[in-house]
Amino acid sequence: MFVLKPACFFLILVSFAVGQGSEPLTYLWPLPAQFTSGDGALSVDPALTLSVAGNGGSSAILRAAFDRYRRIVFSHAGYGFAFIRKLREQLPLLSVAQYDVVSLNVTVHSDDEELQLGVDESYTLVVPKSGESSQVTIEANTVYGSLRGLETFSQLCSFDYTTKTVKIYKAPWSIQDKPRFAFRGLMLDTSRHYYPINVIKQIIEAMSYAKLNVLHWHIIDEESFPLEVPTYPKLWKGSYTKWERYTVEDAYEIVNQKAEKGINVMPEVDVPGHAESWGAGYPDLWPSPSCREPLDVSKAYTFDVISGILTDMRKIFPFELFHLGGDEVHTGTTDTSYCWTSTPHVKEWLQNQNMTAKDAYQYFVLKAQEIAVSKNWTPVNWEETFNTFASKLHPETIVHNWWGPGVCPKVVAKGFRCIFSNQGVWYLDHLDVPWDVVYTAEPLEGIHTASEQELVIGGEVCMWGETADTSNVQQTIWPRAAAAAGRACLADAKLFNILATSLVHWIKGEKQAGLAQLLHGSRFPEPPRIHNTERLWSQRDSTTPQNVTLTALPRLQNFRCLLNKRGVPAAPVTNFYARRAPVGPGSCYDQ
Amino acid sequence: MFVLKPACFFLILVSFAVGQGSEPLTYLWPLPAQFTSGDGALSVDPALTLSVAGNGGSSAILRAAFDRYRRIVFSHAGYGFAFIRKLREQLPLLSVAQYDVVSLNVTVHSDDEELQLGVDESYTLVVPKSGESSQVTIEANTVYGSLRGLETFSQLCSFDYTTKTVKIYKAPWSIQDKPRFAFRGLMLDTSRHYYPINVIKQIIEAMSYAKLNVLHWHIIDEESFPLEVPTYPKLWKGSYTKWERYTVEDAYEIVNQKAEKGINVMPEVDVPGHAESWGAGYPDLWPSPSCREPLDVSKAYTFDVISGILTDMRKIFPFELFHLGGDEVHTGTTDTSYCWTSTPHVKEWLQNQNMTAKDAYQYFVLKAQEIAVSKNWTPVNWEETFNTFASKLHPETIVHNWWGPGVCPKVVAKGFRCIFSNQGVWYLDHLDVPWDVVYTAEPLEGIHTASEQELVIGGEVCMWGETADTSNVQQTIWPRAAAAAGRACLADAKLFNILATSLVHWIKGEKQAGLAQLLHGSRFPEPPRIHNTERLWSQRDSTTPQNVTLTALPRLQNFRCLLNKRGVPAAPVTNFYARRAPVGPGSCYDQ
Repeated sequence: MFVLKPACFFLILVSFAVGQGSEPLTYLWPLPAQFTSGDGALSVDPALTLSVAGNGGSSAILRAAFDRYRRIVFSHAGYGFAFIRKLREQLPLLSVAQYDVVSLNVTVHSDDEELQLGVDESYTLVVPKSGESSQVTIEANTVYGSLRGLETFSQLCSFDYTTKTVKIYKAPWSIQDKPRFAFRGLMLDTSRHYYPINVIKQIIEAMSYAKLNVLHWHIIDEESFPLEVPTYPKLWKGSYTKWERYTVEDAYEIVNQKAEKGINVMPEVDVPGHAESWGAGYPDLWPSPSCREPLDVSKAYTFDVISGILTDMRKIFPFELFHLGGDEVHTGTTDTSYCWTSTPHVKEWLQNQNMTAKDAYQYFVLKAQEIAVSKNWTPVNWEETFNTFASKLHPETIVHNWWGPGVCPKVVAKGFRCIFSNQGVWYLDHLDVPWDVVYTAEPLEGIHTASEQELVIGGEVCMWGETADTSNVQQTIWPRAAAAAGRACLADAKLFNILATSLVHWIKGEKQAGLAQLLHGSRFPEPPRIHNTERLWSQRDSTTPQNVTLTALPRLQNFRCLLNKRGVPAAPVTNFYARRAPVGPGSCYDQ
Repeated sequence: MFVLKPACFFLILVSFAVGQGSEPLTYLWPLPAQFTSGDGALSVDPALTLSVAGNGGSSAILRAAFDRYRRIVFSHAGYGFAFIRKLREQLPLLSVAQYDVVSLNVTVHSDDEELQLGVDESYTLVVPKSGESSQVTIEANTVYGSLRGLETFSQLCSFDYTTKTVKIYKAPWSIQDKPRFAFRGLMLDTSRHYYPINVIKQIIEAMSYAKLNVLHWHIIDEESFPLEVPTYPKLWKGSYTKWERYTVEDAYEIVNQKAEKGINVMPEVDVPGHAESWGAGYPDLWPSPSCREPLDVSKAYTFDVISGILTDMRKIFPFELFHLGGDEVHTGTTDTSYCWTSTPHVKEWLQNQNMTAKDAYQYFVLKAQEIAVSKNWTPVNWEETFNTFASKLHPETIVHNWWGPGVCPKVVAKGFRCIFSNQGVWYLDHLDVPWDVVYTAEPLEGIHTASEQELVIGGEVCMWGETADTSNVQQTIWPRAAAAAGRACLADAKLFNILATSLVHWIKGEKQAGLAQLLHGSRFPEPPRIHNTERLWSQRDSTTPQNVTLTALPRLQNFRCLLNKRGVPAAPVTNFYARRAPVGPGSCYDQ
């Protein structure tokens, strides 16, 4: 058995010494925190059964997830397998074939299914040695940890086209896993383009494959207001058409589907800017019909509407975080969209209150925060609020970085929590950002003390919707969102040098010399020093970006093909621009 | 009640006088052959039941289709509706609300479920007048006709966001429908890029929405050989990787899923060119390792392999048509890929047989035709075979046009059947072909006698896969493939003038004058003369291409949004290049 902890070294070997031609790949994305594997191969019974234990073992979420993953794992087997499975279920004594793995035992210790920030998502997964047991085991503290374990299990299973059975290679496996960050987000913008419920469900499903766990739903913006708000029923008059809307029931369905996948929904109501569409139903919210943003700060009515929206939304969204936006508010005096000082009644109000426009911006954001907090929400705001009046923000505020690097260090230095979304690396609509730039971005960059690092709750990739509609949103998200979700661990410089030298030998055809290098590497006298800091799910790497071509690229290409097989239209990994078509014929694994 | 037959006039009115702002759209794609509609609105019970009649009423295909369409029709209603449905099913006496339509009665006269070219796909669909009946009826001769009727029914149903019920507007409806052509195809190329089974299933599903009925599966080409052939098990060594393959069971599953949707699968084995990948497993099929195409004509072994492939495929594919390719065979003496005369043993064989390379091309194609015919298949060949040796082709040959216009007229003049796929208009990988050019292409162009017109069995849009992988194949197919599938009927010049004049009034804000024109139009003293020639599904139009912007574009945009809602990533209709992202924020219905 080949043991390394964390075991990147092994994966590098698989990728180069074995390659795609001879043996199936067993690539995990994102990499588990710790794992060992062997060199056996186990067949998996298509009639795989679930047995459960622990206080949370009887969870309906777990049962549904097992059924879902069984369909995924045995999907390619197709007709024949469905037939065998049916036959086996009807005739339990009929052993059509002998399989090594016949059941999956899942232990869930807690029956608490509340899904909140920081819920325990850890799990252990054990695949036995051939002949030792016919059972794969997953053990988790919560049902959400078991979901993560099931995803990893599904990635261990490969369809063997020769025997037409599902196999687990490199058995036995022992995996101890937990996420690096509690908040692993994807933002979806349903205002610039409306995405039908079916499409949002497809995206949720794919998020669970990448072990992302927060959908930041940027529901409303200037362009359209698609959500039903029962208290203010004219608000969704701001939708593009009557057929591009989300009912309260739709929103419930999204929240519930996410819970089934262990994914929280953080809704956003972006105020006071980015809100022009509100006025389609209630024009009084605009400073004037000709000057529509930011929302009219001078009227109590404006805050009544915000309060009404948040009251209605509180019934739908159980997650403790609520995003209040607060970005790009035009308060500069030379700004043409500067409505507050150019609209007479607002201007007068400002004078009466002895406020500048900038003061009013602060006043508005803080008042919105008060409303959110009164409804038991933790407010999240875009970084402009912090950059402009940090000391005034509610102390529980989570600051959402987007403009550039270096913001989270300032945020945590002042004791606030931070979400990392530096647009130069994690805005998915920036099509010129290649996968490796997404991959090597580091949320803890520039933050050196453990106590400050803990204030970075995670990161989020943002899918702004200006040029992404139903036809191309998923290929803009995938595979790059997964690059942020999963981070490889890389061995230190010494180990890396051994590998690189060996690789050069192999490429030159100097097989013996290459092997000698690898054997030297595997006999490494002491455990290789791995920088064990962390990233979104996996461990933080400690090497230069170039190295990811060896350690991460083959795995990400494999994950992209896995998404494709599961019906997700993830784009080629290495295209010059994201979501661009492949340049010519070729394998999914190479493009 | 507003009656017009065919009723394009009505649809034009809806599109411009009503627009998207006030009433829901009821747009059908493709347009039925004949229909009338009214001005009522009926609510549809989410617990809609199916009642059946006729010899074919108990069909499992029908039951499955009903369940599928019920999910589609009530999808947006989401959680609340599922809940109501469950409640109603458990408590049949509990009437949560009164609905106008509570059941769908489907009569299928024949229990013959054989799916072949020319199967009867006609149906009638009647939606009652409010209060007259609570039953919508579909009547068809075959179960496949009932499937087409169910699709039309689903397009009549709209979700009303105000009452949160599904409604049928413009009731009563009376629809008599049948396809114009028996063969309405989409070609998929799984050699240049491998599409996972899940993706092919998504494409099949969407084909049924557009009432396309033949998947031409271009399985194998130069680049890869993904299909399992049990008799020659090394053939799929020519796949890109071990994980980009179709097992026999996969192929069965595709055929079966298609049958459930009323879609035939026409497989293609393209010989003797486009076959380099065959030699990965059996290098003897190449003239030489350095000169690999066309397949070695001199060996009996080559034809043994073809015969073996066709024997295996016959067990999978029940459709009577089999495509033998035969395109782009390089026989010119100056052609660098001209392997037959440059490879010594083939050259010698040609001399012994007293054959030129062109003779050998004919010999090869005819021998392949013999093999296919011996297995009870009707051979289909690309047009080069006809262009080169028409008189020698098997008399049952169906010639598949692709090079350009004017081929089908020559083909039918010689008594052969023809499939229209002129690359200038119906190659979907030609991204610069806009929707209206696809839409206005006419398979019967230049064919004037009824007997010759009957020999054009239909047309096919071709999705060559060089730059289309899983990430972008569906947006390259849709919505343009639907443009070929559906053709609007257009009123004659007089009617058109009335509409255009009215429209100009409306645009200028001259509402009264515009209305007067429309009223004049609706009081048209005699039924407007419609040129009742035909296209792929719908009636052939008789006006100039410019007019489609009025009659077809809003309906196609609506159909694109319908595809999006059903989870199909159909691209914006009017983008300069197909599958290009939208240029900015906006509604699905406008982009």
